[in-house]
Amino acid sequence: MGVLVVGSVAFDSVKTPEREANDAIGGSATYFSAAASFYAPVDVIAVVGNDFPLESLDFLRERQVDISGLEIKEGKTFRWAGEYAADMNDRRTIDTQLNVFSGFKPVLTDRHRAHDHVFLANLDPDLQREVLSQADRPGIVACDTMDFWISGNRASLLSTLSRVDVLIINDQEALQLVDDNNLVRASERILELGPRAVVVKRGAHGATLCTRDAWYGIPSYPVTSVVDPTGAGDTFAGGFMGYLAQSGDRGVGALKRAMVHGSVMASFNVEDFSVRRLVSLTEEEIADRHARFLEMITP
Amino acid sequence: MGVLVVGSVAFDSVKTPEREANDAIGGSATYFSAAASFYAPVDVIAVVGNDFPLESLDFLRERQVDISGLEIKEGKTFRWAGEYAADMNDRRTIDTQLNVFSGFKPVLTDRHRAHDHVFLANLDPDLQREVLSQADRPGIVACDTMDFWISGNRASLLSTLSRVDVLIINDQEALQLVDDNNLVRASERILELGPRAVVVKRGAHGATLCTRDAWYGIPSYPVTSVVDPTGAGDTFAGGFMGYLAQSGDRGVGALKRAMVHGSVMASFNVEDFSVRRLVSLTEEEIADRHARFLEMITP
Repeated sequence: MGVLVVGSVAFDSVKTPEREANDAIGGSATYFSAAASFYAPVDVIAVVGNDFPLESLDFLRERQVDISGLEIKEGKTFRWAGEYAADMNDRRTIDTQLNVFSGFKPVLTDRHRAHDHVFLANLDPDLQREVLSQADRPGIVACDTMDFWISGNRASLLSTLSRVDVLIINDQEALQLVDDNNLVRASERILELGPRAVVVKRGAHGATLCTRDAWYGIPSYPVTSVVDPTGAGDTFAGGFMGYLAQSGDRGVGALKRAMVHGSVMASFNVEDFSVRRLVSLTEEEIADRHARFLEMITP
Repeated sequence: MGVLVVGSVAFDSVKTPEREANDAIGGSATYFSAAASFYAPVDVIAVVGNDFPLESLDFLRERQVDISGLEIKEGKTFRWAGEYAADMNDRRTIDTQLNVFSGFKPVLTDRHRAHDHVFLANLDPDLQREVLSQADRPGIVACDTMDFWISGNRASLLSTLSRVDVLIINDQEALQLVDDNNLVRASERILELGPRAVVVKRGAHGATLCTRDAWYGIPSYPVTSVVDPTGAGDTFAGGFMGYLAQSGDRGVGALKRAMVHGSVMASFNVEDFSVRRLVSLTEEEIADRHARFLEMITP
């Protein structure tokens, strides 16, 4: 089984305490599909401007990611700029330019519609529902969101949440979504909004899974040299959804195993700027780290 | 086997976003011994002023904790006051009054000296070594410390660290100790200072164990209602050392299991102010939560 992702393909400018990268290849769909491609076939729906160097996505094509759903529009590509604090965990957004993303209307082909696994990356929740309304009957839909939509388009976001199976969200945004200060309680309250599972990404602090009947938590894989955390959340989601598609299982046990795979993929991504580490990554490296990580988290 | 703890018995004044408690019973030795007593016999070495209501420690006596090593000195008991941020994880110290603790000279009896498990709670590192120098040949010595000694008495602290087996320390202080911004790297660097294991307590974010050959991480037990985190670190250490003493094992497997027990004990402690939850706690509750937690962290 494959995975359909709708999200951004973008230019990122990232500043960390030690280094910086300007106009590097980024975007939620880029990170997600690179990670998921190690587990399952991936179709991407996104949009770029005619300023985008398409050859920079060759590494995705080589990994059998289908980017025929990438629309090229007259105009400029989505741009994001951010800066990380000394702990490499907190960050602030310096600039966001939607550019060709404003006015983007995704159109799904028959092939896209038929996917059983759909990931709605962080986007305008109206757009997320537009994709869902065109899809046939996906067995599992996961989505991400961010502070911008939580405060700026809340009603629409709640409407999207009522139609997804899994919300994959970072810790601060989980708290913001339900106006709480306790992540466990916040996760439980998010379940009341619709999703049957909430995955909270906590950066270097790990990730937790909450369903009506189960709770599961893992630390982050211990990375000694975090170069650039950008895309870690989308890479996590890619490993998570990719594993679910590969396994064809959607029980709690599978969700738990998917968290471990997501975490492993994210741990690679932070080791270099942009998608560099994902470009060089091999299946052997993933299998090796996955085995080591399982040992590190098994009581 | 039993555990010897040297630490504080104190009055704590705690302010949280919703409530506050003044001059409540606290102190590292109090929290530690209450938790450890569920696993093994505990001897306490500490000092209080003659303003301290000794009957408030009756719950420890009922749990067979030997507090005959509690010295009662003319003067005032150690006092700490702190305030927690909205996330109940970050806190700031408002006031610390050493009082009878300044000038305290612990004297170990033959019974104390013979202990195989020793915990040196957060204290002046000179005092920590004084206790060690009187002990016979403990099989496992663990210690805690804090920013005050890291910056104020570093040479002495390093001397203590070179003589302990396990450092149990919180995340911010681990980073401060070796002036790093990455907890994994910081843990590895702390091993070079002497301990064969470093346990980093990360509050609501879990705990990690680092030895020369192994790394292990667990999330915190999911508590929906955190009332007062004061003493969580010492309660963790109590469950950790108590389990090691009970098991008589000091291999990496035992250290991992001890982390889980420490985490369970800390999760109870934060559910109420001061030592209230530890006073009402039963062995059945611990066994039940321990089993549930194991399920929550097993991949």
